Amino acid sequence: MMNAANREIPDYIEGYGLVSHYAGAFANIGKKNKRSEVNIEKSACLNEDKICQGIEEVLDRLPLRNGMTVSFHHHLRNGDYVTNMVMLAIAKRGFKDIHLAASGLFACHDPLADLIEDETITQISTNTFSPGAITKAISTGKMKKPVILRSHGGRARAVENGELHIDIAFIAAPSSDRMGNLNGSCGEAACGCLSYAYEDAKHADYVVAVTDNLVSYPNIPVEISQNYVDYVVKVESIGDPAGIVSGATKVTTDPVQLHVAQRIADLIDACGFIKEDMSFQTGAGGISLAVAEKIRDKMEKKKIQGSFGSGGIHSFFVKMLEDNLLKALWNVQCFDLEAVNHLKKQDPRHLIMSASLYGNMENKGCIVNNLDIMILGGFEIDTSFNLNVNTGSNGFILNASGGNEDCAAGSKISIVASNLMKKGNRCIVKKEVVTVTTPGETVDCLVTDRGIAVNPRRKDLLEKLEGTGLPLVSAQELYQMGQDEGAVCESPVYGEKIVGVVEYRDGTVIDVIRQVIQ
Amino acid sequence: MMNAANREIPDYIEGYGLVSHYAGAFANIGKKNKRSEVNIEKSACLNEDKICQGIEEVLDRLPLRNGMTVSFHHHLRNGDYVTNMVMLAIAKRGFKDIHLAASGLFACHDPLADLIEDETITQISTNTFSPGAITKAISTGKMKKPVILRSHGGRARAVENGELHIDIAFIAAPSSDRMGNLNGSCGEAACGCLSYAYEDAKHADYVVAVTDNLVSYPNIPVEISQNYVDYVVKVESIGDPAGIVSGATKVTTDPVQLHVAQRIADLIDACGFIKEDMSFQTGAGGISLAVAEKIRDKMEKKKIQGSFGSGGIHSFFVKMLEDNLLKALWNVQCFDLEAVNHLKKQDPRHLIMSASLYGNMENKGCIVNNLDIMILGGFEIDTSFNLNVNTGSNGFILNASGGNEDCAAGSKISIVASNLMKKGNRCIVKKEVVTVTTPGETVDCLVTDRGIAVNPRRKDLLEKLEGTGLPLVSAQELYQMGQDEGAVCESPVYGEKIVGVVEYRDGTVIDVIRQVIQ
Repeated sequence: MMNAANREIPDYIEGYGLVSHYAGAFANIGKKNKRSEVNIEKSACLNEDKICQGIEEVLDRLPLRNGMTVSFHHHLRNGDYVTNMVMLAIAKRGFKDIHLAASGLFACHDPLADLIEDETITQISTNTFSPGAITKAISTGKMKKPVILRSHGGRARAVENGELHIDIAFIAAPSSDRMGNLNGSCGEAACGCLSYAYEDAKHADYVVAVTDNLVSYPNIPVEISQNYVDYVVKVESIGDPAGIVSGATKVTTDPVQLHVAQRIADLIDACGFIKEDMSFQTGAGGISLAVAEKIRDKMEKKKIQGSFGSGGIHSFFVKMLEDNLLKALWNVQCFDLEAVNHLKKQDPRHLIMSASLYGNMENKGCIVNNLDIMILGGFEIDTSFNLNVNTGSNGFILNASGGNEDCAAGSKISIVASNLMKKGNRCIVKKEVVTVTTPGETVDCLVTDRGIAVNPRRKDLLEKLEGTGLPLVSAQELYQMGQDEGAVCESPVYGEKIVGVVEYRDGTVIDVIRQVIQ
Repeated sequence: MMNAANREIPDYIEGYGLVSHYAGAFANIGKKNKRSEVNIEKSACLNEDKICQGIEEVLDRLPLRNGMTVSFHHHLRNGDYVTNMVMLAIAKRGFKDIHLAASGLFACHDPLADLIEDETITQISTNTFSPGAITKAISTGKMKKPVILRSHGGRARAVENGELHIDIAFIAAPSSDRMGNLNGSCGEAACGCLSYAYEDAKHADYVVAVTDNLVSYPNIPVEISQNYVDYVVKVESIGDPAGIVSGATKVTTDPVQLHVAQRIADLIDACGFIKEDMSFQTGAGGISLAVAEKIRDKMEKKKIQGSFGSGGIHSFFVKMLEDNLLKALWNVQCFDLEAVNHLKKQDPRHLIMSASLYGNMENKGCIVNNLDIMILGGFEIDTSFNLNVNTGSNGFILNASGGNEDCAAGSKISIVASNLMKKGNRCIVKKEVVTVTTPGETVDCLVTDRGIAVNPRRKDLLEKLEGTGLPLVSAQELYQMGQDEGAVCESPVYGEKIVGVVEYRDGTVIDVIRQVIQ
């Protein structure tokens, strides 16, 4: 049927099951929900030894089976060794039809593409993706079942309510004691916090901590406590924290991007959001950091203190906290080593949040609901403000949904920041995006170097912007500008096979992704 | 039937239901367990206002009904105002048949005895009790259904696995923000931590924070986060922290008790427990603190550092942490204001644990399992080492089970410390205790001024004590000494009505308490 995002979606998807259709960004908010029944597969015996000397020993002790779901977190990002280590060992034992429920997969996980080919892995669900061998294998139809792309909050929701049942959670732990008290902030492979693993630890049948840093009891601080952990596996190294930092983490020097950043700050100011107790979230990319810097300038000029910065935490937010421009940080993952080091100092204002606390719309109030300003990334946006963060214009999968849907829905103003024309003469504004990730209903503004488009739904913002001199245009006009400049229009050829299911944060299917033939 | 603690227990108890019979202290350890399905009665709407101006407003917003279960925590102990405030308001609205699931009830809650009489409250379940009007009303058969006495870990287990389903949890919060991020360490009524409320917050259908200290967002530190809280109620005062301290919190000066304390320290030393990374737990009573002092002396002499002190935390443990004699504290509640103040300082080594992490035997490893030495309190012990911490020799209920069962089962050596003869010429050793709370299977030593009895089950300890010169006697001999000194033997007259069910920490019924007629 045609869903509320105007996408034609079948009622049943092979390898996924019955579809619950997307019905609007807020259709399922304020309802009665269920969290899952949790089976403790085996409670602790007195004096039981949780320690295993290596992956093989823990695999010997676990009830492995074909068709099981195993999970991993992605705080070590492109420096993670654990996912490959475990999956290759499982593959070596001949288990097949595994559902890999990793909160994130990066280029370092490319070796797992072979396990897709040989049907060790037949399904993946994730909320962070980097383009590489795995995304390519999926997009070209090599994986048996479709990948499920979720938001951070959507994954936490699915784990908590049982939609994503995890048989075994493997948690890369930069620091653990013999009982399995874990933290992410100490040790050679410190990655900051372990937020994305919190729900896995609470709801998986078996929980395995994999560590290269076994410390004396009790391991301080305790992020995940011993009552959730079955086994502690000692390995040589769980990862390289240098891989945490990916891409630009410096303020852009591109004059066009700086111009866009200034416009965004002016827009936010004109809309009345530069005020005491304001809160905001932005990524660690060059343009995002430039926006953060411009916002900071305005805060300093007005001598105000903000409430919090949230999401992935980077050095820029840490500095704002240290300079008392923010009262607190809500950290769901560290984007750079400055953030990791600051977390290690245990400043009480540097708060860690679980993925559920961050963005799960099924609980009693997630942090994104308290967020004023959200700077969104995205590959494409259409004239209805639908945002695509999953696929390129060529139809290939590039990313999962991250915090995009969650923050767009929760924040008081959500802003897409981009040059109108991108590399290869591509225009960010399309008539229709390849994939709808974040519905236009929740995307408020598109700020480009060629003008600012405000979602007509936000009459309140449009009123505030009247007479400010900010260059307002319609999304349609931006689209036309792109056309006039000869924007490249790709026309990928799709096969029939559905290779990806895009779940909105409430678990409904907002879009599907089809196999790319050429 | 006759259960494993040699108590004749019916298979069905009116007002309680079908009985699961106690089968031994470790009969249900290492099994597959279930945690409860949790219904989120209503997920948060965007911009929803959680703030209520007073108890009446929140009661208007809650789906109150006859027969509901409401819960409270007891960290404010005898200084708590919230339980009375809420229960009297519920009573005023005419609701009946309420199950009061309070983690602890004290003398300050005496006004609730009237609500038992008029059947507003028809059942109570608790894990901490002070003798007063409520215990008297129960013991004399005034309450419709039997009180359920649990251990701290047992309550957490029951809440987590759904045996104790809470409709509405009211959480006295010394500090809250408008979204319901809560802590116990800030504000006028600071009580330290809120551990006993953690499971309630996670599993109750509705969660109400009651606070007299509404702070700006976000409230730091966050003990219970906003994703668990439906409403935040502002009241004038939630309690008087002076009521936290109850009874003696100074080292005893009684020479007999000091003698017993020294013997215990010598016993522990002789058994090899004064060693690097040792851990111990002791209450805040005069004799317990004397034991702690003697243990400290030995640690200092041997120049060793212990691993942790756990349970209710008092100034003595805080001092040991500050003096680096302990690496960490695991705090489940503060026993005095020094502990409260230390927690407020956020020393990373002062760890807060949930009641489940503390003592729930159904999870993957609670802290009591890591405990070396436990000093137990108790009213009576019998020659089979069964310990009664629930009732006096006159049959009246005096307390719930606290951490007694949990720590006795988990620790490597559990020791009852007492003068043989107590006030009124009562002897602590009986042929048979009035009520079995903690099974003899888990109680290792009884240390009195007249000798040390070691449970014959602990052959390992007896071997270690050979030739040490410590005055070993049998429990039978201690009993006889009491008889020879003319120990008072009370013979209460019981009615048929079962007024109390003593659940062992695994949820089986270890004993029942009958109505006292005279």
